[in-house]
Amino acid sequence: MIGTATPRDKFLAEFPSLVEELKSILTNYGMPAEAVSWYESSLQHNTPGGKLNRGLSVVDTYAILKGFSSIDELSTEEYKKLAILGWCIELLQAYFLVADDMMDQSITRRGQPCWYKMPNVGDIAINDAFMLEAAIYSLLKNHFKQEKYYVDLLELFHEVTLQTELGQLLDLITAPEDHIDLNKFSLAKHSFIVRFKTAYYSFYLPVALAMYVAGITDPKDLQQARDVLIPLGEYFQVQDDYLDNFGTPEQIGKIGTDIQDNKCSWLINKALEIVTPEQRKLLDENYGQKDATCEARVKKLYDELKLGDYYHAYEEQTAKDITALISKVDESRGFKKDVLTAFFKKVYKRSK
Amino acid sequence: MIGTATPRDKFLAEFPSLVEELKSILTNYGMPAEAVSWYESSLQHNTPGGKLNRGLSVVDTYAILKGFSSIDELSTEEYKKLAILGWCIELLQAYFLVADDMMDQSITRRGQPCWYKMPNVGDIAINDAFMLEAAIYSLLKNHFKQEKYYVDLLELFHEVTLQTELGQLLDLITAPEDHIDLNKFSLAKHSFIVRFKTAYYSFYLPVALAMYVAGITDPKDLQQARDVLIPLGEYFQVQDDYLDNFGTPEQIGKIGTDIQDNKCSWLINKALEIVTPEQRKLLDENYGQKDATCEARVKKLYDELKLGDYYHAYEEQTAKDITALISKVDESRGFKKDVLTAFFKKVYKRSK
Repeated sequence: MIGTATPRDKFLAEFPSLVEELKSILTNYGMPAEAVSWYESSLQHNTPGGKLNRGLSVVDTYAILKGFSSIDELSTEEYKKLAILGWCIELLQAYFLVADDMMDQSITRRGQPCWYKMPNVGDIAINDAFMLEAAIYSLLKNHFKQEKYYVDLLELFHEVTLQTELGQLLDLITAPEDHIDLNKFSLAKHSFIVRFKTAYYSFYLPVALAMYVAGITDPKDLQQARDVLIPLGEYFQVQDDYLDNFGTPEQIGKIGTDIQDNKCSWLINKALEIVTPEQRKLLDENYGQKDATCEARVKKLYDELKLGDYYHAYEEQTAKDITALISKVDESRGFKKDVLTAFFKKVYKRSK
Repeated sequence: MIGTATPRDKFLAEFPSLVEELKSILTNYGMPAEAVSWYESSLQHNTPGGKLNRGLSVVDTYAILKGFSSIDELSTEEYKKLAILGWCIELLQAYFLVADDMMDQSITRRGQPCWYKMPNVGDIAINDAFMLEAAIYSLLKNHFKQEKYYVDLLELFHEVTLQTELGQLLDLITAPEDHIDLNKFSLAKHSFIVRFKTAYYSFYLPVALAMYVAGITDPKDLQQARDVLIPLGEYFQVQDDYLDNFGTPEQIGKIGTDIQDNKCSWLINKALEIVTPEQRKLLDENYGQKDATCEARVKKLYDELKLGDYYHAYEEQTAKDITALISKVDESRGFKKDVLTAFFKKVYKRSK
């Protein structure tokens, strides 16, 4: 590594060769040039450009499992393998986000137009999303077919994909933007949605992938990882919900719109648990309305209900619970608490 | 089997237990009832209801490979395994069709509204399509994980999925409904589109699946199957294109709309190959227009060009070529010409 390259730069540097590899699959099928170039545009527009935390976590987790003090201790070949798995998560996320943006009718993503909003794309984006998913299995076949854990990787991606889709489904039917019914909401449902829609693919998947490559694959160890990472992923999403209302635009890089968008957020669910009948009426009348006055009424009620205090209490309790869980992790088969601690540190009390 | 049950009835009778199995996966995850019921509706609306030719072919092919004279010679357990693979193809098709209907803005499918047109569905159909695909891998894991060819099945579904998506992509960018440019068309592109979009999943996939279960898995045999079934699938689609214009509504069960829809059909591509510059001008001005007069002009030119005669010449040549290919098939490792002949007979000179 050249001295100033960040881990993100190093990870990004692997992407162009994967794009070439995927393009060559199409070329070998005899696919006309304009279609190969379309696929390349979709890969480039939708895959890099985010924070890449999920992809980077695969490399980081592997280094910790191996007892390395830095990712630079990985051999070039080793690094490439881990980075490919990291990019597979980023492709999975790209697949979901292209589709989510269409279902949410979003306009921008990562500071650029959503893919389906790009010239000449439109609904073709649905097929492009499919092809982003297909890229995962092309890469896994090309690079992992010889490994004894190949079928585990395939099943892991299949399962996490289904879990994420289940979370998305429950979210979509619980909180449609055009039909507000707070009776459908509950903290239990919120927990299911965020665990399935976010925690499995963002927190558990990177760690499980690194564990397979490191040869730490006892079901008990995968379970230990899951037992911490799924609640941690839930906590991460609750923070997101909290910051959408209580964070400053500078902190979160956007202006929160969860109230106007009828989102099944932790805040509204917590509020529903503690409101008086009169306050509930205010929520029924004002939540999910595309109207700044309605939104202001809900925000005012959130303050009156001291939701910020409830959040901080939740945060402290969750941090305590997760820390306790981590402390009890059995390292005898080679799994490491440090993997979980590293994730916990990135999440705890973050403000952006 | 009770005397009067058709092969289709027998195949359909397996579906309810697969739906229950898929629902129980969601229930075991703790998914709320309304989401389980949504998933069931999507499975029921989108999976059965078609001709089920692809699914039925898996069972038929297996029976031929085993030298059975009827599918009733399969044991109950054997039948169930083959039928599950057949339903996996039907799920794959359901996944594609839900999405295709959205991309084509279709209104009806199999005599009922397209899924995305159903009340309260809309764009949620994108996620539902994803979940139809995910169902394939849940079923394969539950029923085939113990088989030595399990990973072959996974890779086969991955590859055929990608191939179908590639065909769909090329079709979408070659023949968008709102931007007519006949310069993008060619018979070579038509061949690529129909082979990838239709032939792999409809013709090759059912046979390859039955071959894996029957233990006939030499790459040479899979290649022999592909070498016949891909051209046969192309011929099937050319027939479809021919019948869209030259078939009667009674024959094809609908009124053809390929000309108004700017479809990259075999007929327009054949026409483009043989037109005078003046006739080409007529096509440029009238093809793909949502206008009955424009359409009539194109139809009249098709008649003048004697496209029907060209089609019949193509049909005879293709039938000859495919018959010759089948006659050369090497049966020494257990593959059977009869598998291919059975497909050929279903396709040759069909009129619906």
